[in-house]
Amino acid sequence: MTVRATAEFSGTDPRTGERAPGAYVDATAAEVAAAARAARAAFLSEGDRRTFSDAALLRAVAEQIDARAAELCEAAERETGLTSARLTGEVARTTGQLRAFADVVDSGELLEPIVDAADPAATPPRPDQRRMNLPIGVVAVWGAGNFPFAFGVAGGDTAAAFAAGCPVVVKAHPSHPRTSELTAEAVHAALLSVGASSAWFSLLQGREHATGVCLATCDDVDAVAFTGSRSGGLALVRAAAERPRPIPVYAEMGAVNPTVVTPAAASARGAQIAQELGGAIVASNGQLCTKPGIIALVDDGAARALVGTLAELLAAGESQPLLDSRTKEAFVRGADELAAAPAVEVIARGAETDRPGSWQAPLLAQVAASALTSGVTQVEEVFGPAAVVAWCADEAELLKLLESLEPALAAGLYAEAEEAALHPIMVRLQRKVGRLVFDGITTGVTVGRATVHGGPFPATSIDGHTSVGMTAPRRFLRPVGFQGFPEAALPAALRRRAAS
Amino acid sequence: MTVRATAEFSGTDPRTGERAPGAYVDATAAEVAAAARAARAAFLSEGDRRTFSDAALLRAVAEQIDARAAELCEAAERETGLTSARLTGEVARTTGQLRAFADVVDSGELLEPIVDAADPAATPPRPDQRRMNLPIGVVAVWGAGNFPFAFGVAGGDTAAAFAAGCPVVVKAHPSHPRTSELTAEAVHAALLSVGASSAWFSLLQGREHATGVCLATCDDVDAVAFTGSRSGGLALVRAAAERPRPIPVYAEMGAVNPTVVTPAAASARGAQIAQELGGAIVASNGQLCTKPGIIALVDDGAARALVGTLAELLAAGESQPLLDSRTKEAFVRGADELAAAPAVEVIARGAETDRPGSWQAPLLAQVAASALTSGVTQVEEVFGPAAVVAWCADEAELLKLLESLEPALAAGLYAEAEEAALHPIMVRLQRKVGRLVFDGITTGVTVGRATVHGGPFPATSIDGHTSVGMTAPRRFLRPVGFQGFPEAALPAALRRRAAS
Repeated sequence: MTVRATAEFSGTDPRTGERAPGAYVDATAAEVAAAARAARAAFLSEGDRRTFSDAALLRAVAEQIDARAAELCEAAERETGLTSARLTGEVARTTGQLRAFADVVDSGELLEPIVDAADPAATPPRPDQRRMNLPIGVVAVWGAGNFPFAFGVAGGDTAAAFAAGCPVVVKAHPSHPRTSELTAEAVHAALLSVGASSAWFSLLQGREHATGVCLATCDDVDAVAFTGSRSGGLALVRAAAERPRPIPVYAEMGAVNPTVVTPAAASARGAQIAQELGGAIVASNGQLCTKPGIIALVDDGAARALVGTLAELLAAGESQPLLDSRTKEAFVRGADELAAAPAVEVIARGAETDRPGSWQAPLLAQVAASALTSGVTQVEEVFGPAAVVAWCADEAELLKLLESLEPALAAGLYAEAEEAALHPIMVRLQRKVGRLVFDGITTGVTVGRATVHGGPFPATSIDGHTSVGMTAPRRFLRPVGFQGFPEAALPAALRRRAAS
Repeated sequence: MTVRATAEFSGTDPRTGERAPGAYVDATAAEVAAAARAARAAFLSEGDRRTFSDAALLRAVAEQIDARAAELCEAAERETGLTSARLTGEVARTTGQLRAFADVVDSGELLEPIVDAADPAATPPRPDQRRMNLPIGVVAVWGAGNFPFAFGVAGGDTAAAFAAGCPVVVKAHPSHPRTSELTAEAVHAALLSVGASSAWFSLLQGREHATGVCLATCDDVDAVAFTGSRSGGLALVRAAAERPRPIPVYAEMGAVNPTVVTPAAASARGAQIAQELGGAIVASNGQLCTKPGIIALVDDGAARALVGTLAELLAAGESQPLLDSRTKEAFVRGADELAAAPAVEVIARGAETDRPGSWQAPLLAQVAASALTSGVTQVEEVFGPAAVVAWCADEAELLKLLESLEPALAAGLYAEAEEAALHPIMVRLQRKVGRLVFDGITTGVTVGRATVHGGPFPATSIDGHTSVGMTAPRRFLRPVGFQGFPEAALPAALRRRAAS
């Protein structure tokens, strides 16, 4: 148990550098342990006899957030610098997501019931075997800095855990303590309205790394869901691996997402593609984990024209505030390193501003693909409005570049539908990412049953699941088999259904 | 790279202590790396254009094993001491399993295709999103000592990996190098018959711990499947966690499996239950990972009579050979520790023999449940023909005991169908295991779609999946999403189907 950090903290308005409202203190180790212990006790008690419906809870959380939308957006605008329009849309996405999870719970498909009928005539005789998914226990959630709602306190991970039937302990993002606190109030009001224990959900504030490690290593925590930086995610993966009882850490850690533009596509609609890419690079000031980070083209006239247009767009791009001073520092450092990297040339930079706060302008650089495939230089994620154009001499070098890329979350592919190059490019991209987008930008993840937001390490720590969409609760479920049970004793989901 | 161990080794006949045929040497680090590198190259090449069918490969392996069944059983009998009847049955289970996986591959269900149609009228407009599972890459398999075929070189894990479309590198169990080599010959003949690269499957011999760690930490390996001891499994979990690129380790590590007999069941059919439990404890000389390890009863006359019958059966049980000298040493040590544990009393011991080899007789002990729940004593897995009876004063103590148990693979539940105690016992057991069996023994896992062979840590390292049955390939698959692609460019599985 650590001594409580007595220093209060608050968010900072990235548009002005001024302190945002509210005063918060780091949760102590005892508070972390108590939250997880209470969540486990509630989980065990609900396992005996359910007193509330997961779907009703999800809908109630949506309702409470909708009722507080204006206040939540105002707080988030002060703590993140994101625009009111963007935040209003994000709240709608968040409550839509909660209600969609409620519908999926109602459908029963998360339980994945399977019934294998007995076959007494088989050799050896086959018993009646049925199985379904059960919740794994207490889920600890780390929200992302760039989506204070959709990936926040009541965002996708919390919704997925609730949908799986798991209680949640959230570690609030240190940059938006007030937004987190207000959202937690909405969740607690929802718990009350459906008759659930208040221990089913807890919020822990904390700026200190130790608070997070304390939660991830807490014996009463059964899984971790994290969205954020690679260093933050890997720290939790390591901490969890060292527990006496290891637990899964589902860390979504961002990436350098590739977008490929084939010569045919560049020739057919280069100007439009440049517009789309330019918009995707600066949307939310580049602070989206599916932002195009590297744009691969075969060097020809059409591609040069496309990149010329893109460079003009970004050079004309205005400064926007980054989320917080840490994000700004990381962006400045990343941009400097990119500019200084061997064989890399900056070809566009938007106008800087000397306003206080975290304002930063867009950046576009270029590099020869051969410098990347030969290892002369490496491109790492620059979180913010920056991207790199990689010039390939020909299609063979483009394929070689794609083979050498570090795995990412999403890949864009601007090509013509009938192009011969389409298949070899797709094969290489699908080995590297969780989601391929044809003829469109990778940003803007639609939440549905087919959604995949994940990818091979280091994009995520576990690539067998998605962190967004209706199958995300699978992360917090485990299958349990029932052999030879009398019909009446089986869980309802295994009783109702005919043999499948 | 280590220097090749020049010392040759072979198996040992546990029935006689004599050296079994064959002479093998540990694979060198260079050989381990070369096998994994070749497997990756084959995987990448197949990703471009498939040259063989996974289902055809699975069926061909089954055919080649069937053709060599007599030779394989003879080799395994010499290296494991298991009976010819048991081994013949296990070969049939193994080839049946391979063919069942082939049927599942043909069904397409492993791909879990999902199609979300576009909705241009939605706000924001929903794109066409589709997803399916793709193979993750090279799977390294550690076979179990107790199932030289069903969990061996071409056992469930290899079959599951092939079904997922992944190449396999097997680390042979050190106790049956010849059985492993002969099985690998069957797999290679199958690869040849379907036109697959011989690099799609490799066998590595090795007694040394270093050979295994070398494989698990090899950069070209993408997942590990292990069946064996807790110490062996945890060593691989730790080794994989320390890689620069962490990979999943699916370790099935055995357990102390609980069986509960309620007073009503003991009263209604105590003698029959004693017969069933006695058979399950000594089947394959107790060397089954689902063997009942702890039998929980409420102390009354019927339960005493049941345990009396069980003790008589085990005391009359003959010595049988254990798998190898290491298993024998562990059993002797485990039995001694059990007998010496506080509050534990040995109540039956079969007749020992002084034959050379690994012969050991059954053992039954008893303990008061209060000694377990209070932490006075602990029961650990004794791999071999041993079990412990836990006496509970009443149903409340039985429930408390179940809450205190370490998680396991399977739980037995002898109860009456209408009994009030059934629900609270089920709820506690389903938190602790992957599979509950009503009114029957936990040994004998039927391979089907509803099969769950897994359980919370420490029974397995990752409890979100099963290591046996038709959904086991999910461990080696990851979802990939395709957004906005033209129909003709999509993988066939996403093209053929209507919107789901």
